[in-house]
Amino acid sequence: MSMSLDGFVAGPNDEVDQVFAWYDAERAGAEVFPPGALGSLVCGRRLFELTNAWGGRHPMGAHVFVVTHSVPDAWPREDTPFTFVTDGVASAVRQAKDLAGGRDIAIATPTITQQCLDLGLVDLLAVDLVPVLLGKGVPFFAGLSKGPVGLGTPTVIEGKGVTHLRYPVHH
Amino acid sequence: MSMSLDGFVAGPNDEVDQVFAWYDAERAGAEVFPPGALGSLVCGRRLFELTNAWGGRHPMGAHVFVVTHSVPDAWPREDTPFTFVTDGVASAVRQAKDLAGGRDIAIATPTITQQCLDLGLVDLLAVDLVPVLLGKGVPFFAGLSKGPVGLGTPTVIEGKGVTHLRYPVHH
Repeated sequence: MSMSLDGFVAGPNDEVDQVFAWYDAERAGAEVFPPGALGSLVCGRRLFELTNAWGGRHPMGAHVFVVTHSVPDAWPREDTPFTFVTDGVASAVRQAKDLAGGRDIAIATPTITQQCLDLGLVDLLAVDLVPVLLGKGVPFFAGLSKGPVGLGTPTVIEGKGVTHLRYPVHH
Repeated sequence: MSMSLDGFVAGPNDEVDQVFAWYDAERAGAEVFPPGALGSLVCGRRLFELTNAWGGRHPMGAHVFVVTHSVPDAWPREDTPFTFVTDGVASAVRQAKDLAGGRDIAIATPTITQQCLDLGLVDLLAVDLVPVLLGKGVPFFAGLSKGPVGLGTPTVIEGKGVTHLRYPVHH
């Protein structure tokens, strides 16, 4: 995720213009997932709503598992790459793994990432650190409920207006 | 300052063992201030107390300006490099500048840094980013009261168990 130096992935009204300012300029540079490498994506209901179901299809071609308390009205729809999971994050990750068949699974929501970190389900933490202090907004890591999570020394790729950090997660 | 990836400069009980784990191993590497370059240091009362006045002298040889509501008992003491400033952060920075005579001034406390950022008094933000998620603790940036603070693309030095980031601050 793109994160400000003070830990926010969006502003107080979900604005992402500042944390994604680097994205259009760079684009080609440092994708975590080369085309086809991403098998599936796990996200929360909020992101699904905010992106308006990504217009019907995720830009990276991934099948999306949406963790939610209840299946949204008029969903699921035929021939769309969305599965709604109502029995929790661990179930969503398990289903995403089954479908991905060895390819990578990405987690696209702060709260889901926090829950997966607590459950020990994250292997790599990808942070695109953006040189801005937002002061307030939507935090990436605020909801961790378990003690310190140890990470390894990151792989660093220096971009323009962004520092790409890839941390292995210690289990 | 040394900061965990989730934004803490110390644990919930002021523990700094995890955010400073890299320090002893590296030491020589990436000091921000070469010997003699640091003219003075501005900190808060809490750090002064926590370090027990650094045993009487700051390790980098700097004169220390302690921002406090009241001068602590039995201070100031003769022949010690401590000045107590009771009329606010801006005054402390001004006095520190006068004494430093062109050399650098460092700010050593999160709350003082936040106030200086709000006042536009910071030129460079030095963050030693440590690969750990603490989950809770003392935040570096939680008290910013003004809107987003724009930073420049950082200088990056990759250390072992730490990523040294040096951000120019836009005014």
